[in-house]
Amino acid sequence: MLEPGDRAGGRWLRELGARALVRRLLDGGPPLPGVSDKRWAGLCARAARADPGRDLDAAREAGMRFVCPGDAEWPAQLDDLGDARPTGLWVRGRAGLRLWALRSVALVGARACTEYGAHMAATLAAGLAERGWVVVSGGAYGVDGAAHRGALASGGATVAVLACGLDRPYPSGHARLIDRIAAQGLVVGELPPGDHPTPGRFIVRNRVIAALTRGTVVVEAAYRSGSLVTARAAQRLGRHTMGVPGPATSARSAGVHELLRGGAALVTDAAEVVELVGAIGELAPRRSGPVLPRDLLEPAARQVLAALPARGAPSAAEIARGARTAPDDAIARLYELRSLGYVERHGDGWKLTRQTMISVRADRDGC
Amino acid sequence: MLEPGDRAGGRWLRELGARALVRRLLDGGPPLPGVSDKRWAGLCARAARADPGRDLDAAREAGMRFVCPGDAEWPAQLDDLGDARPTGLWVRGRAGLRLWALRSVALVGARACTEYGAHMAATLAAGLAERGWVVVSGGAYGVDGAAHRGALASGGATVAVLACGLDRPYPSGHARLIDRIAAQGLVVGELPPGDHPTPGRFIVRNRVIAALTRGTVVVEAAYRSGSLVTARAAQRLGRHTMGVPGPATSARSAGVHELLRGGAALVTDAAEVVELVGAIGELAPRRSGPVLPRDLLEPAARQVLAALPARGAPSAAEIARGARTAPDDAIARLYELRSLGYVERHGDGWKLTRQTMISVRADRDGC
Repeated sequence: MLEPGDRAGGRWLRELGARALVRRLLDGGPPLPGVSDKRWAGLCARAARADPGRDLDAAREAGMRFVCPGDAEWPAQLDDLGDARPTGLWVRGRAGLRLWALRSVALVGARACTEYGAHMAATLAAGLAERGWVVVSGGAYGVDGAAHRGALASGGATVAVLACGLDRPYPSGHARLIDRIAAQGLVVGELPPGDHPTPGRFIVRNRVIAALTRGTVVVEAAYRSGSLVTARAAQRLGRHTMGVPGPATSARSAGVHELLRGGAALVTDAAEVVELVGAIGELAPRRSGPVLPRDLLEPAARQVLAALPARGAPSAAEIARGARTAPDDAIARLYELRSLGYVERHGDGWKLTRQTMISVRADRDGC
Repeated sequence: MLEPGDRAGGRWLRELGARALVRRLLDGGPPLPGVSDKRWAGLCARAARADPGRDLDAAREAGMRFVCPGDAEWPAQLDDLGDARPTGLWVRGRAGLRLWALRSVALVGARACTEYGAHMAATLAAGLAERGWVVVSGGAYGVDGAAHRGALASGGATVAVLACGLDRPYPSGHARLIDRIAAQGLVVGELPPGDHPTPGRFIVRNRVIAALTRGTVVVEAAYRSGSLVTARAAQRLGRHTMGVPGPATSARSAGVHELLRGGAALVTDAAEVVELVGAIGELAPRRSGPVLPRDLLEPAARQVLAALPARGAPSAAEIARGARTAPDDAIARLYELRSLGYVERHGDGWKLTRQTMISVRADRDGC
């Protein structure tokens, strides 16, 4: 019922709780402090029209779920947004959003990008996927699309954060791409089924991209580009903010250069991105090994983990066969296990981390 | 007699003085402390062959002069090089080196630059010249040549610092360009007439470019490019170090990007360069006006200053006519007067600064 990013609404939710807030809006009583009569009447009308039960039913039929703060799948880093935190996220796809977001990087940039921008987005995305990182973007034309495709093409993990209901993906020309992302990756958004994007919704959506990820890379952006909003949100949230340089003569790089002059880190390849975002705060540092005991893994993840051999680095497809699951499902689990420190990607294949090997041997030897 | 950049030689010069050092080398006596017999013998042989009187005569005939520490024309900022300070500089051209160097920026980069690099070098050089700044470079093919030409083409001031004797400019394909620089700007170098460049001499020459200028801009440079040596020398000397970004896919920009990642400032146009190098330590800040009284100006400079009208911004050629001198001479004087705070460049023309106008009026009114 609340518009994404509504800070006053976020504060009421925090102070009153969802149930009491909905009751007050449905009662249509006097407005809460600090809100005009007109705005309050609008919210009450919206609440009267809203039908969360119907939305949830429709979503379930379309293969979506709704993830709220407090749920096991809720990415806790979104709480950094304070009162602008999403009230929840609609999610399409097999992977666990929380685990994927732990090792994710946003790649954003101009819709009307140059060939150079598309090339850099695709190359960075592929390189990040090959290093076990999840590529997050906005599903738009240009840099976003190239980033998603680059990750998908290298058997990688990617998340599209949309500014509309997931049942009517925008832009419509990306409907098939977004379906493909939902199959191999995740499609998420704040807005309920049926809602359309608006210019304002694109802008507030960007804060979710910034907050969800470890860092934001701007690939190409003119002055005043929306992707600079994402980058500045990332900066404010203490996330890494990065930019890919381009010719000084290119208007599509002018916004990136402005960002770099303002303190963002200059990156030219995936290794440099990972050097920054991977530097600190790893959930599972290599030296200490996985933090979640294998017994607590979900059965599907345990099955995929069990399909990894002690030697060699089979592809996701080979692992899927061993685990008797679909390749897309194997990819979802492998990047989850990557976030937990169990496995690593090596080129096109996957292998157990050294720490996992040690603990497997210890279990077998009965230690 | 000493090779440029010879720190031991520089120390002897400082401790003994030039006269005593030459006497000891000509005597061929026991070596000075800390130098091998072999190296000392080499230096003595070189001293015996040297004929400074002949060099100076040849230089004078070729229109060169020799400027030493302590001379009025010596650029004091070269003293920042300590014992690696040049023992002196050979100079071709009309302008005063000291005054020109006060407001100068180095533009350096790859010899085998791309069209983009050449374009950026020429555009930056023209923009700097139009803002009254002197463009210093190394006279080489590629970025250097484009920078010199860009400054010359916009009626600007440029200095070529060579790694050889000024009578045999290198590369020979730039002989005419270097003559043009000597006519409208300055050609300088540490090596006596007749000396050839060597790879080592190019490298040590770079410290002079870095020390002479307020800052160094690297336009294009591959990894391990010689222009990065200039940039790092500038960094060590506390000068501004700047880089022009390029495509992340271009090997010719890889060295610049490395420099930018190491803390150099990203610049995309002349205004951004001037914003940095002009920010502090101006010899003649606009507010306080010229520091040198007009009576102490050289007659040629006074004549050019007197040719500037109270209103309007005539071109250098028009000013030259008024001052009854050659256009190249007018350019030399105008950039000297610019360093002293008397005049400013406006587009293609020149005008008196506000402070000069005030003091002219005060003189006229007998204050």
